[in-house]
Amino acid sequence: MKSTQIRLAARPEGEPKDSDFDFATVDLPELDSGQVLLRVLYLSLDPYMRGRMSSAKSYAAPVELGDVMVGATVCEVIESRADSLAPGDVVLSYSGWQSHAVASARHVRKLDPESAPISTALGVLGMPGFTAYGGLLEIGRPQPGETVVVAAATGPVGSAVGQIARIKGARAVGIAGGPDKCRALLDEFGFDAAVDHRAPDFAERLAEAVPDGIDVYFENVGGKVAEAVTPLLNRFARIPVCGLVAQYNATELPEGPDRLPGFMRQILTLSLTVRGFIQDEFIPTRQADFLRDMSGWIRGGSVRYREDVVAGLENAPEAFRAMLAGRNFGKALIRVGD
Amino acid sequence: MKSTQIRLAARPEGEPKDSDFDFATVDLPELDSGQVLLRVLYLSLDPYMRGRMSSAKSYAAPVELGDVMVGATVCEVIESRADSLAPGDVVLSYSGWQSHAVASARHVRKLDPESAPISTALGVLGMPGFTAYGGLLEIGRPQPGETVVVAAATGPVGSAVGQIARIKGARAVGIAGGPDKCRALLDEFGFDAAVDHRAPDFAERLAEAVPDGIDVYFENVGGKVAEAVTPLLNRFARIPVCGLVAQYNATELPEGPDRLPGFMRQILTLSLTVRGFIQDEFIPTRQADFLRDMSGWIRGGSVRYREDVVAGLENAPEAFRAMLAGRNFGKALIRVGD
Repeated sequence: MKSTQIRLAARPEGEPKDSDFDFATVDLPELDSGQVLLRVLYLSLDPYMRGRMSSAKSYAAPVELGDVMVGATVCEVIESRADSLAPGDVVLSYSGWQSHAVASARHVRKLDPESAPISTALGVLGMPGFTAYGGLLEIGRPQPGETVVVAAATGPVGSAVGQIARIKGARAVGIAGGPDKCRALLDEFGFDAAVDHRAPDFAERLAEAVPDGIDVYFENVGGKVAEAVTPLLNRFARIPVCGLVAQYNATELPEGPDRLPGFMRQILTLSLTVRGFIQDEFIPTRQADFLRDMSGWIRGGSVRYREDVVAGLENAPEAFRAMLAGRNFGKALIRVGD
Repeated sequence: MKSTQIRLAARPEGEPKDSDFDFATVDLPELDSGQVLLRVLYLSLDPYMRGRMSSAKSYAAPVELGDVMVGATVCEVIESRADSLAPGDVVLSYSGWQSHAVASARHVRKLDPESAPISTALGVLGMPGFTAYGGLLEIGRPQPGETVVVAAATGPVGSAVGQIARIKGARAVGIAGGPDKCRALLDEFGFDAAVDHRAPDFAERLAEAVPDGIDVYFENVGGKVAEAVTPLLNRFARIPVCGLVAQYNATELPEGPDRLPGFMRQILTLSLTVRGFIQDEFIPTRQADFLRDMSGWIRGGSVRYREDVVAGLENAPEAFRAMLAGRNFGKALIRVGD
């Protein structure tokens, strides 16, 4: 069996270019006992992948040059040498940017296609949904009547943050790029207010949308959104930090003035909590609750989700660039195989 | 009865000048029922006072121009119209930079001169000691074997932070200015290591002093100390922020590059917790524990303290400048009356 792979060819400077990737078709090895042969159905594209393309120190090792780009996938088992899985089973895997893969059965999780669409294991019921749930409930801890602000709000993390905030009785204010996304925040996801970060008077509009200030800012973008949010924070506000997508493609140190002393002063005078996290730290304590709560909320209609599916593995580099730039509308997925 | 007062005459630009204060002698009003007449024995000088001299938004209102500078004091009651207090009693008050004051008996706390030297109510057994205790135990949460770093480490907050860290089984690394203070950290306060921030190779020495990285950085200074600490932080490190004395006299925005995006990235990739606090938020839950624990530790010899007493209210402005610049050696106090 052959696999078509997208490998990291060069460490991107700024936005990843086509030449930072190369395509190859390789023969997969024969299955060992306990292994399964997978055909990839969906590949998830997520902002953290930009970090893996870089050699800068981070919470996870970078992808080595020449290696297949990492990524979560939903796959069909097409051959099995493991008792727990049979051909036709659908599993969550971490097989990366390729069409087929060999994996240990112990490293995949079987999905139930009856209980939810299989693609949701990469989005609202997967890592992005759990990032929203864990970060908001463990760090943000929204109280009834408080105001929660999140950007990239039609994305898989942001849309879940806003909807969970409302379930907890808080007011949800979403930030997104362009009128279509802002309309979806109000009509589709039930946010209390939506603010377009492309508007020339964005900072003023955000201030108007949070008349009582901001108690929780769920930080997944950084950049100019964070700059507009900061003056509006209330005393004891909490800032879970799960991503900084606006700065992932930065190639040089940002110009001055140095805003760090001012931000530290604000942390001090407002007794702010700023807390970075990776969702996996909450798995032991929260994942079971998450799967139960989120499945129930989806069934009950209180959490909706949107997917942005691009067909064809070969389109992954361009779809990835589009996602970093906010040109996707919903969870970015590549439909790899039918 | 007359009181000699130091009033705020102008909002300081940078380091407070003599001309930012003026001296006056005023007649105090007759006592109302429930009030006491106080003779100030000790005035506490603390970095937060620099914030009160400024009109910038903060957690407390600024001192108005023409008003007596605020501050905690230990006083003798010389006349009383309150049942709870008699002449000769010693109390903790908040009567500010003056020699005498009228206060409501309900707004002062009677001290027991037998149980501890009365000046400690302004230091190790007062607000600075409680800042160390509350911030370290509620936010820093040092675990046995972890490394705790604190600057201004011979000061009333820093010395308590290091000693409490050791009581909790952590390794305490203190930063101070000059060899005398560093020696005191090791010989007097029992820190595991001391680093002189005036050394030209300060950053390298700090790195050597924390071979296992930093788990808790108790932030009370900011500036170049924070800059040297940041690259040494471990995953899940905690940073309680109680002060930023190095930047209190700053008059303009610091030059670039803008370090905020880099710090946010570090918060994200290391899952850091940065949490500003004012000690009073912990009073309801922790103050009783603090008074019991700290008194016991002082009696048992596991917590020591050092005071830097300057005689004469007229020297308060210069002593305050000296404290902001780190020229004091221990808790800064003005001996106002004998």
